Amino acid sequence: MEIREIVKAIVEEKKEIGGIRQVYFVACGGSLGAFYSANYFLQREAVTLRSAAINSNEFVHEAPPALDERALVVACSHGGDTPETVKAAELAKQRGAAVIGVTYTPGSPLTEFCDYITGYKFRTELETSFAHDKALVPVHIAVELLQQTEGFAGYEAFQDGLKKIDGIVRNAQEQVKERALQFAETYKNDKIIYTMGSGPSYGAAYIQSICIFMEMQWVNSSSIHTGEYFHGPFEITDRNIPFLIQMSEGRTRALDERALRFLKQYAARYEVVDAKELGLSTIDPSVVDYFNQTLFTCVYDIYNAAFAEARNHPLSVRRYMWKVKY
Amino acid sequence: MEIREIVKAIVEEKKEIGGIRQVYFVACGGSLGAFYSANYFLQREAVTLRSAAINSNEFVHEAPPALDERALVVACSHGGDTPETVKAAELAKQRGAAVIGVTYTPGSPLTEFCDYITGYKFRTELETSFAHDKALVPVHIAVELLQQTEGFAGYEAFQDGLKKIDGIVRNAQEQVKERALQFAETYKNDKIIYTMGSGPSYGAAYIQSICIFMEMQWVNSSSIHTGEYFHGPFEITDRNIPFLIQMSEGRTRALDERALRFLKQYAARYEVVDAKELGLSTIDPSVVDYFNQTLFTCVYDIYNAAFAEARNHPLSVRRYMWKVKY
Repeated sequence: MEIREIVKAIVEEKKEIGGIRQVYFVACGGSLGAFYSANYFLQREAVTLRSAAINSNEFVHEAPPALDERALVVACSHGGDTPETVKAAELAKQRGAAVIGVTYTPGSPLTEFCDYITGYKFRTELETSFAHDKALVPVHIAVELLQQTEGFAGYEAFQDGLKKIDGIVRNAQEQVKERALQFAETYKNDKIIYTMGSGPSYGAAYIQSICIFMEMQWVNSSSIHTGEYFHGPFEITDRNIPFLIQMSEGRTRALDERALRFLKQYAARYEVVDAKELGLSTIDPSVVDYFNQTLFTCVYDIYNAAFAEARNHPLSVRRYMWKVKY
Repeated sequence: MEIREIVKAIVEEKKEIGGIRQVYFVACGGSLGAFYSANYFLQREAVTLRSAAINSNEFVHEAPPALDERALVVACSHGGDTPETVKAAELAKQRGAAVIGVTYTPGSPLTEFCDYITGYKFRTELETSFAHDKALVPVHIAVELLQQTEGFAGYEAFQDGLKKIDGIVRNAQEQVKERALQFAETYKNDKIIYTMGSGPSYGAAYIQSICIFMEMQWVNSSSIHTGEYFHGPFEITDRNIPFLIQMSEGRTRALDERALRFLKQYAARYEVVDAKELGLSTIDPSVVDYFNQTLFTCVYDIYNAAFAEARNHPLSVRRYMWKVKY
């Protein structure tokens, strides 16, 4: 079922009880990070619809009062078997909420508690379109929901962006190949690497920090919001500490530019990933902000493959996950 | 003016245009972190009222559509002169929103764009009540607003908590004096320290990470949500990396307990700050979650003084703030 049709069916079904009032994006780790742009979209663009992105285990334990039959829960798990997220979907069903599952794995435990399932294409399957990226599918759901309830002036521009993003990402991945190798050589022995970002794509910095550097490379990390940088974190800046900074295209670019100016003056070891330079600006300004995250994450794939190779530390190695009980 | 009276005046004034529809908590760094519990309170407890906590500079640049005359903006700046926050309050006034300023500094630039000002007591002024803590004043505003609009079943319990928190904090500060000295001795030479937390008090972990470890001590840090820990960050855990973990009292305690169990098994260097052990449980379970942040932050004051002393690095030292333009 197409996303538009899924949302239409839910909006129809909930009409007689007053319509959808609250959206919860529920997931853990990288999947929660992938919801960042979608939640940001609704929090910024909607005027009455409420939205929150919550870690699945926190969601299950706090079981918020607005989780009722007027809520829509969007739950994401790559394997569809994250226990906390499966529980969250189960709780949502018990409370009468509509539940959309976003997963790479059809027929997984998560799908048991979902009214609708929408897949996403894994980024390494190059034959598919990046319009179906894990971060963009939830934005697509959010855009449809807003359009079909309050209305969204950028709706057509967003559809146009969906058509353009695949080509943009493929070009960008080509464009960074050489510098990804350089990045890997330069930083392969570092014990800590910070990521930086702002706006809807802060989620990409978060994922890069917790899923790649910490989880897959055992490198200490933290994601710093470029607007927050000057209110505490920047004091750790010196000529040795490395930063990976993403320059977003759209409303919050000025924040990233300010942080980069500071890095240029007081840091010496930083890598810039710039959405404007990577061609995102052909998407309409009214919606371009919401495509940054997919671009950054897909470009990081190239960086991360090179980084893992240079460090001789495959991205699949774990010391706890799949190995011990927790 | 009392917080209850301020909120009452705003609710009255906005009644004829349909009432307050959206709250924005706007600030930077530690002040944004101090809003964490208040925003969390409204996002969890309210059913129709929208709430968001946004970095001031991001807020100014994105200027969300719901920022109109039906919005309430709560803006916080310790000195009342954070340029981004002053601009945010100015924008809010231009859009017709009601603006409450939370500041330690009456007559500061921020106050020019505020309809109402409410101070908070700085935690080191021991003659004042910790009920006026920087994190609790915004929660108090949020509780009043919810009670006067949708209603809040925990209202009386919250008032009772306000009466109890001062004594609890004072006892807790005494209780940790000795272990704060030990903490300082043990970790004074570490180059990185992680903080961990969940629920409304995650904000305390964030502040401890960005304002104390990074800003005031130049120690690398990141705040890890205990629910997110198992979905990436925990892979960096070993017997050398230090963690400061806060065990909250209330709904999300199970998340903290799970993280602590893991630390006990696979880490060796961690400090536990436990709200239950520190006496928070005398506050009613319906509202106790929202008092954790103040307890943790005030207890960290004792830790931080000892840490700065042991490191011979005063909390007031900066290399960029107040020294260079940025």
